[in-house]
Amino acid sequence: MRIGGIEAGGTKFVCAVSENDSQNIIDKVSFPTGDPEETLDEVKDFFKKHQIEAVGVASFGPVDLNKKSKTYGSFLNTPKEKWKDYPLLDQLKTLFDIPVFLDTDVNAACLAEYKYGAGKGADTCLYITVGTGLGAGLVQNGEIYQGKNHSEMGHVIIKKHHDDPFNGCCPYHGSCIEGMASGLAIEKRYGKKGIELTENNRVWEIEAYYLAQAIMNYYVVLIPEKVILGGGVLKQEKLYPLIRSYFTKEMNGYLDVGSVDELIVAPELNDEQGVIGAMELIGRSLS
Amino acid sequence: MRIGGIEAGGTKFVCAVSENDSQNIIDKVSFPTGDPEETLDEVKDFFKKHQIEAVGVASFGPVDLNKKSKTYGSFLNTPKEKWKDYPLLDQLKTLFDIPVFLDTDVNAACLAEYKYGAGKGADTCLYITVGTGLGAGLVQNGEIYQGKNHSEMGHVIIKKHHDDPFNGCCPYHGSCIEGMASGLAIEKRYGKKGIELTENNRVWEIEAYYLAQAIMNYYVVLIPEKVILGGGVLKQEKLYPLIRSYFTKEMNGYLDVGSVDELIVAPELNDEQGVIGAMELIGRSLS
Repeated sequence: MRIGGIEAGGTKFVCAVSENDSQNIIDKVSFPTGDPEETLDEVKDFFKKHQIEAVGVASFGPVDLNKKSKTYGSFLNTPKEKWKDYPLLDQLKTLFDIPVFLDTDVNAACLAEYKYGAGKGADTCLYITVGTGLGAGLVQNGEIYQGKNHSEMGHVIIKKHHDDPFNGCCPYHGSCIEGMASGLAIEKRYGKKGIELTENNRVWEIEAYYLAQAIMNYYVVLIPEKVILGGGVLKQEKLYPLIRSYFTKEMNGYLDVGSVDELIVAPELNDEQGVIGAMELIGRSLS
Repeated sequence: MRIGGIEAGGTKFVCAVSENDSQNIIDKVSFPTGDPEETLDEVKDFFKKHQIEAVGVASFGPVDLNKKSKTYGSFLNTPKEKWKDYPLLDQLKTLFDIPVFLDTDVNAACLAEYKYGAGKGADTCLYITVGTGLGAGLVQNGEIYQGKNHSEMGHVIIKKHHDDPFNGCCPYHGSCIEGMASGLAIEKRYGKKGIELTENNRVWEIEAYYLAQAIMNYYVVLIPEKVILGGGVLKQEKLYPLIRSYFTKEMNGYLDVGSVDELIVAPELNDEQGVIGAMELIGRSLS
């Protein structure tokens, strides 16, 4: 059985076809995200070479995942103007005429890491991605957590670092975690991208301080067995020990978290967690 | 069928017997929480009058609810010295020789409000209690949320009010939500109990400011359909409109929360949500 996966990111789309097992990718393509129509044309072009029986979509957000809602499967209030209100699921169903399954990119990535990656064996698994934006998804006993709608988790409240004059870049909250610790926040604060600031230790101390606080907020609410931290900003591998250290300091002995080295970990699926997770949405929904 | 419910609170125990339906309470007693042995003797005395077939226990925390754990059903690191490490579930099983079901008081209260009270009809229901301490529980599609262990949610990070010199009373984190907004925090900050401060508007402005932030943290992670706010501190009914107003301000248009008056509400089970919820644990587990 051939299945398709689409990681519909805000910056790029990744499309893949797998044979029998979502990890067994036999063809893959990646292209920049353009307008909805031109982007879906590229998606169609790629998949027409393959006879796929179902397709899973891991989309950037916010997207309406409330099945009770009239706009289920459509984008909500995204800053990407042309995608705002775009009925992604309906359009894909029209395009494919096979079953289409949709969730968010972060939720799908969490599902893939839970099944095959760093979250293997954990009953409750949180996946946090820190790229241009910041978001998290939770999988518990094989199911993606969803409240009234999918949660992005990117806007929790944190305390400001005493040595950080930046007031945050979140258009809603200013200094929430996305406003203070996303890739965009780093760029706006320092006038340079994270990758150009690799040698500046202060940057990563502050970044770790904020991410540790977000993890504490998630932890005390969700008590996950694994916290998987991925995304472009986490390519700065020195962040992991710093975050673990700040997290331990912030928690200050409240709750037995076990080994923090085993709790807060890097993803293991080599940037394919999104597209593999997209295909895993099929398995979940068909079973 | 007669069933028993025990709300094992840190201050008082409530025991009740119901006939067929958990809400149909035919006998009830309440007494202060003493040492474990004397308290359990009182529990035993009450129930020996009734032939109950199962008992549910809604306990103060933290209690180990990880079924994989060797100390499952025992208290963890509670400030109530004599209850620390006390094997509550094992002792109750010895006492009763009938099925015993255990969860936290907040989780049980959430379950009761979800089934019969303010959370009726909501798929995802959060119950927050603000008494001496502060905690929250989540019920989703009839199931109590639990990660690796039960989450108390009482220690999320919040921003300090510009006009509040108090540094918080949480022994672990100082100024987390429990440290800033619990009944104990009010008492430590002002040297008086909340009930003596009813007329002081500034007290409740600050209290609402903090609780709104905690709700925002819970909301963006869990996206509940209902947020039920109970506990002794919320007897100050003026808090509800203040909290709703600060919550709306903090969220600042991020996410469509619907009507905030319908989202953030008071409990409806007249302080019996704990003991009714305790009995509901039986139904859940036997079914």
